[in-house]
Amino acid sequence: MKVRVSVSLKPGVLDPQGRAVHHALEGLGFAGVENVRVGRLIELDVADDTSDEALDDMCRKLLANMVIENFRIEKLPETVGAA
Amino acid sequence: MKVRVSVSLKPGVLDPQGRAVHHALEGLGFAGVENVRVGRLIELDVADDTSDEALDDMCRKLLANMVIENFRIEKLPETVGAA
Repeated sequence: MKVRVSVSLKPGVLDPQGRAVHHALEGLGFAGVENVRVGRLIELDVADDTSDEALDDMCRKLLANMVIENFRIEKLPETVGAA
Repeated sequence: MKVRVSVSLKPGVLDPQGRAVHHALEGLGFAGVENVRVGRLIELDVADDTSDEALDDMCRKLLANMVIENFRIEKLPETVGAA
């Protein structure tokens, strides 16, 4: 089973990386960019019987820093080759 | 307009960060994890009249390294406050 975990900074937490990207986009001449936030995207291949609790636990214990980050778990439908 | 850009390593490109996360998950006792890939998630607030070409251009010129990474652009529907 493919699982996609999106980890993003909580609102209000300063994001210097996002600010640098924003600045660079303006420097390249892209107008109309108002805000940029940079997070992480973690794609996991896990056994089909992995429970939602286990996935939640992985995020809380390792993948996200719960003090400053939020996470979102999406299970992806199997694509080619799924019977 | 909110736009979410997902940047992930192309298949076959070595991902030491993903391997480290995989190893750490196993060390924490999570069984059944087969593979982990780590990418970036970039959330942009852009003007509503920003063209698809401009977004594509931003990705190619700055947000993704086209030699080793793929990107995917998703436009998010406006939520609260949209008329």
